[in-house]
Amino acid sequence: MRMSGSTFGSIFKITTWGESHGKAIGVVIDGCPAGLPLCEEDIQKYLDRRKPGQSKFTTKRSESDKVQILSGLFDGKTTGTPISLMVMNEDQRSRDYGNIAETYRPGHADYTFDQKYGFRDYRGGGRSSGRETIARVAAGAVACKLLSYLGITVTAYTKSIGGIEISPQNFDLSARDSNPFYMPDAKAAVDVEALVSECMEQKDSVGGVVECVVKNIPAGVGDPCFEKLDANLAKALMSVGAVKAVEIGDGVAAAASRGSQNNDSMYYENGILTKKSNHGGGIYGGISDGSDIILRAHIKPTPSIAADQNTVTRSGENVTLSIHGRHDPVIVPRAVVVLESMTALTVLDALLASMTSRLDKIAAFFQR
Amino acid sequence: MRMSGSTFGSIFKITTWGESHGKAIGVVIDGCPAGLPLCEEDIQKYLDRRKPGQSKFTTKRSESDKVQILSGLFDGKTTGTPISLMVMNEDQRSRDYGNIAETYRPGHADYTFDQKYGFRDYRGGGRSSGRETIARVAAGAVACKLLSYLGITVTAYTKSIGGIEISPQNFDLSARDSNPFYMPDAKAAVDVEALVSECMEQKDSVGGVVECVVKNIPAGVGDPCFEKLDANLAKALMSVGAVKAVEIGDGVAAAASRGSQNNDSMYYENGILTKKSNHGGGIYGGISDGSDIILRAHIKPTPSIAADQNTVTRSGENVTLSIHGRHDPVIVPRAVVVLESMTALTVLDALLASMTSRLDKIAAFFQR
Amino acid sequence: MRMSGSTFGSIFKITTWGESHGKAIGVVIDGCPAGLPLCEEDIQKYLDRRKPGQSKFTTKRSESDKVQILSGLFDGKTTGTPISLMVMNEDQRSRDYGNIAETYRPGHADYTFDQKYGFRDYRGGGRSSGRETIARVAAGAVACKLLSYLGITVTAYTKSIGGIEISPQNFDLSARDSNPFYMPDAKAAVDVEALVSECMEQKDSVGGVVECVVKNIPAGVGDPCFEKLDANLAKALMSVGAVKAVEIGDGVAAAASRGSQNNDSMYYENGILTKKSNHGGGIYGGISDGSDIILRAHIKPTPSIAADQNTVTRSGENVTLSIHGRHDPVIVPRAVVVLESMTALTVLDALLASMTSRLDKIAAFFQR
Amino acid sequence: MRMSGSTFGSIFKITTWGESHGKAIGVVIDGCPAGLPLCEEDIQKYLDRRKPGQSKFTTKRSESDKVQILSGLFDGKTTGTPISLMVMNEDQRSRDYGNIAETYRPGHADYTFDQKYGFRDYRGGGRSSGRETIARVAAGAVACKLLSYLGITVTAYTKSIGGIEISPQNFDLSARDSNPFYMPDAKAAVDVEALVSECMEQKDSVGGVVECVVKNIPAGVGDPCFEKLDANLAKALMSVGAVKAVEIGDGVAAAASRGSQNNDSMYYENGILTKKSNHGGGIYGGISDGSDIILRAHIKPTPSIAADQNTVTRSGENVTLSIHGRHDPVIVPRAVVVLESMTALTVLDALLASMTSRLDKIAAFFQR
Repeated sequence: MRMSGSTFGSIFKITTWGESHGKAIGVVIDGCPAGLPLCEEDIQKYLDRRKPGQSKFTTKRSESDKVQILSGLFDGKTTGTPISLMVMNEDQRSRDYGNIAETYRPGHADYTFDQKYGFRDYRGGGRSSGRETIARVAAGAVACKLLSYLGITVTAYTKSIGGIEISPQNFDLSARDSNPFYMPDAKAAVDVEALVSECMEQKDSVGGVVECVVKNIPAGVGDPCFEKLDANLAKALMSVGAVKAVEIGDGVAAAASRGSQNNDSMYYENGILTKKSNHGGGIYGGISDGSDIILRAHIKPTPSIAADQNTVTRSGENVTLSIHGRHDPVIVPRAVVVLESMTALTVLDALLASMTSRLDKIAAFFQR
Repeated sequence: MRMSGSTFGSIFKITTWGESHGKAIGVVIDGCPAGLPLCEEDIQKYLDRRKPGQSKFTTKRSESDKVQILSGLFDGKTTGTPISLMVMNEDQRSRDYGNIAETYRPGHADYTFDQKYGFRDYRGGGRSSGRETIARVAAGAVACKLLSYLGITVTAYTKSIGGIEISPQNFDLSARDSNPFYMPDAKAAVDVEALVSECMEQKDSVGGVVECVVKNIPAGVGDPCFEKLDANLAKALMSVGAVKAVEIGDGVAAAASRGSQNNDSMYYENGILTKKSNHGGGIYGGISDGSDIILRAHIKPTPSIAADQNTVTRSGENVTLSIHGRHDPVIVPRAVVVLESMTALTVLDALLASMTSRLDKIAAFFQR
Repeated sequence: MRMSGSTFGSIFKITTWGESHGKAIGVVIDGCPAGLPLCEEDIQKYLDRRKPGQSKFTTKRSESDKVQILSGLFDGKTTGTPISLMVMNEDQRSRDYGNIAETYRPGHADYTFDQKYGFRDYRGGGRSSGRETIARVAAGAVACKLLSYLGITVTAYTKSIGGIEISPQNFDLSARDSNPFYMPDAKAAVDVEALVSECMEQKDSVGGVVECVVKNIPAGVGDPCFEKLDANLAKALMSVGAVKAVEIGDGVAAAASRGSQNNDSMYYENGILTKKSNHGGGIYGGISDGSDIILRAHIKPTPSIAADQNTVTRSGENVTLSIHGRHDPVIVPRAVVVLESMTALTVLDALLASMTSRLDKIAAFFQR
Repeated sequence: MRMSGSTFGSIFKITTWGESHGKAIGVVIDGCPAGLPLCEEDIQKYLDRRKPGQSKFTTKRSESDKVQILSGLFDGKTTGTPISLMVMNEDQRSRDYGNIAETYRPGHADYTFDQKYGFRDYRGGGRSSGRETIARVAAGAVACKLLSYLGITVTAYTKSIGGIEISPQNFDLSARDSNPFYMPDAKAAVDVEALVSECMEQKDSVGGVVECVVKNIPAGVGDPCFEKLDANLAKALMSVGAVKAVEIGDGVAAAASRGSQNNDSMYYENGILTKKSNHGGGIYGGISDGSDIILRAHIKPTPSIAADQNTVTRSGENVTLSIHGRHDPVIVPRAVVVLESMTALTVLDALLASMTSRLDKIAAFFQR
């Protein structure tokens, strides 16, 4: 279903709302099972990972991004009814938008919003602002907590920025949250810092790649032919602003490979089924096989740059634009928790859907 | 919505059914507008592009894949009620499946289907067979015909196989249907032929990349935040078996680029709005801008290979498997029309959805 | 979700197709759990209950209505993939429709179809024909079989025709299938026979009421606020042609009652929770309480009557119309199995949905 | 689609949240077309019609029910992005719920919520409280405003309470808002006042009937076979707490009628198509014919009564319960605006969906 684009998921279903300079941003989670212990701090720690102003490499916009839970809890647990989460917008800095209001910023959604809706809220991008992802992260935090009760973890990190990639031998997940780029490789992060600093001096921006790993998902999750797990993950990641490509498992490399190399051989070792490789990224025929799910999102450079750019106005003029103000030179680090959240939401929804695939298990469920 | 995975789309909605060795394969199109002239030949010409046995590089399975229209037409036009399309399975060759029934083929969905459903139809892969795509193509043909009435075209072709890529200076779309690889570059196709022949001798298989271009789509199609046009295209392509990565516009390359390079500058020339580049692939903020939409799917090598492979049986043994029979050494050429179909279905559905985005246009619609 | 109106249900989802004088009528069931033993006879016995020509009180149209299962089965059991069911139309009697084509029959959907779609398939009503219900019954038979595995039964019968009602003291369900009116009261059926015969002589038609009872449904089925079980049952029944009112429990009578009378008191008897009455019809706050669900559909008289009627043509003339041919003087008896089917489909879908409402039960499900 | 029950509609889609004694109650409207002038007062006047404490016949709970618009507006018009509406709960009177927490009130959803979710928010009924309808009315107000731009009106009123019915000859819509029962018949309202006063003295409650009329809807709205306009209206009304029956047009009376009486004859008068009667209530084959749509909801007596009732506790005891506090002796008057809202939401969603039914109209839409 594709209608009314602010809803994601079918069983664990989220509906997000809010624009950059409106009163608040929020999400309603409908279909969260009853009985999950939940408090604001569970959500806040995820929001803090995407909060602006944490390093000199992110926007200076000052927002505390404090979440409030408005409904759906009783005695500290979810009741099974909708959970409404809200974050107030605090720094809606009053200024003259006359210029932005009339000019279409290159690489942004200004022109397309105007074409679609006839006009747009030009203050800070309105609904096309990156602040929209607050709602995704708030909901993702709840999904992650629920998944953790079932033993499933979802972990994302920056794989590369501007072509500088983490090295497999330096991989250290504990290092991820200790550098401004959320890279699990402290050495690579130092190199990236130099690169991004140079970019900022050049009034330019840079892109990168985020990788996400899901562990301990049961086999059997995903619904052929159109609700395959990889298809929904691709949609989930591509729905995040600035993502331009999605890979599952070996992804692009698989297409250049041979069958004899790319097939993942299975074998039993001490009675336990395992695989020699995981080129497929844990999904075959759109269904999880119980091994790690591995996916990557490729993120374009921030379109807002201070360098001069040619563009047009609404009224038909060619103009030169230089975008100053509060922009990230690289959006990748703050996207990490967003992509982690979207992956968690997708996996959880598919997992719940998988409960109805077999009559024997349904019969057992209702007999208890 | 992700339930019951055999439905795709919301307004122009298709529901597919059928397995490799069942009686037939089909699709019900619900929501096709009334008044579209349609006949079986309109659909057959698309099906013929994916039909097996057209060259020595495709499976020898003998199927005429003739489509029947069972409902939804009157006086040669669609009535607005469901269109039921069916293709009989003819070559359900009777043979001993004992081996396949018990063995999990590497790179296939055998293990995951068994885990999900408790057992599976092992004859030719059952529902996970590539024959499932017949239904996608039959529906896609109807979508393409409808889009053509609105002036919109969708065109896919093979961009590369086994690393051999079409060259921009040799690009000739008219050459696409004249070589067994559906490449719009006759010279590249010759090189690919040698490569694939070598692969077959080595009992191996190879992958490749399909590119798809949508022309003349109006600006304003796609619904933020979760039903963005690129998000749904990513899902559509990734839902096709063997696709492991999807790119929009510059895709993977965008992530290694700078903002100053990657931004698409707009300008007016003789009063007409145009762009200096199309790195974004025609979609900004999830909404079409009216320029060409460009996307690519990366397809893994066919998992069924004649070379010996290590794998396991259902009952817990480690075994060696060599898959003989009717398999394509490269699935890419036959996937071209499938990906074209999925793109058309996605674009059409989003286009119809875009009709309700503005009150002024709605009011005008009902005033006539 | 309301798009593309030929799909019903979300987990156990059916998509129907076919018109009165097309080649065939069918349904695709998507989301039927794997492992249900199923054969054509299971479905045929339901279809035979709605088949025409079983008494002098039904249309003379000659149709065997034999169902074919085209997909979704292996070794006699459902595989979890789509089940495609088809019934060929046999008696598409060739005749001159010129009159019907141009004239809008009173009480029919001729005018509204023309207004909606711009033209219509006027042969036998096209998609608005009662034959459309074949698909509902075929799918309903599968739902009933699945429910019976879980101990749940769904039973409908004629409660009244033309004001002649079954008497509580004569109620005998075993009598239902022994009279042409499907009334569980042999004496009432005799009175109805006289009434309907008189109606036919007067070239008129008559309506009636069907009641449906669901037994052994677990407590906890139905999802507030909009997917309440009674709300979906109301939609399911009202979606059947000619139904003009739906009641749950005491229904209309409840509105004329007092709280002290209408409330259903609960009490424990020998440790078992029970109720003194069931005015609510087994649903409170949109959720089942485990007692019998009771609902009724009120069906209008067949609009096709042989008596002269004033009406109009497409081209703007006032005319007199007398409808001869193959019409039921009362549609109620053949609607019984249709309403039973729609109830079963609704209950099954809600039941499957209820599996994800509690974290403790979800955790237990995945631990096994 | 039936998942996650707090969403209603597909194009103009609403998601509601909040419980009786939580912080707030709200709704997110997703899919509202851009360009609709909207302010809080537009919504407030609808909310004021259901606000408690307006007469001695409603609960004494003191709530101002002031709505806030949190997103989706710019320069006083809707932007096409989600509209978030919120009403704070003010009178969450602190008291001892020990008794209610453990006791299942007859006729309420206490037992079913406990069965479904494992526990429940027992403060004021939690999510099953009538306060949930605030969100429906807030969204309905927006739907009504949009419909009025298209010339369509939706009007509901009390038809009867406790068997006392408005008289056709006294019908005066302007009288509706001048009596506490929202009856368009001042004389009947006086009789009802006496009846309800007597009821209150007897510590009892009473039910009634609400009628709703939709005027100026275009012909062609509604989608056979499952998204018929009457089917969705039935669902919409039945989803409101305490509604036990729904009628379209003549409804129950149609089932006792003859075809010759019940058919609505059409004729042309001075070139304008009209009907001699409207027994069908403006819907044929599930599609509007352009005449008035007429429907009725039958509402049970308030289950909360001060008289002693037998019931049970959670822990297995039989007890006697007398419910004191802030309860309406008749819920019908406050349900009027709720049912008007649900009708408007349903009609608007179906209207928007009808825009894609004809290729000629689609082509014209995109040519402009």
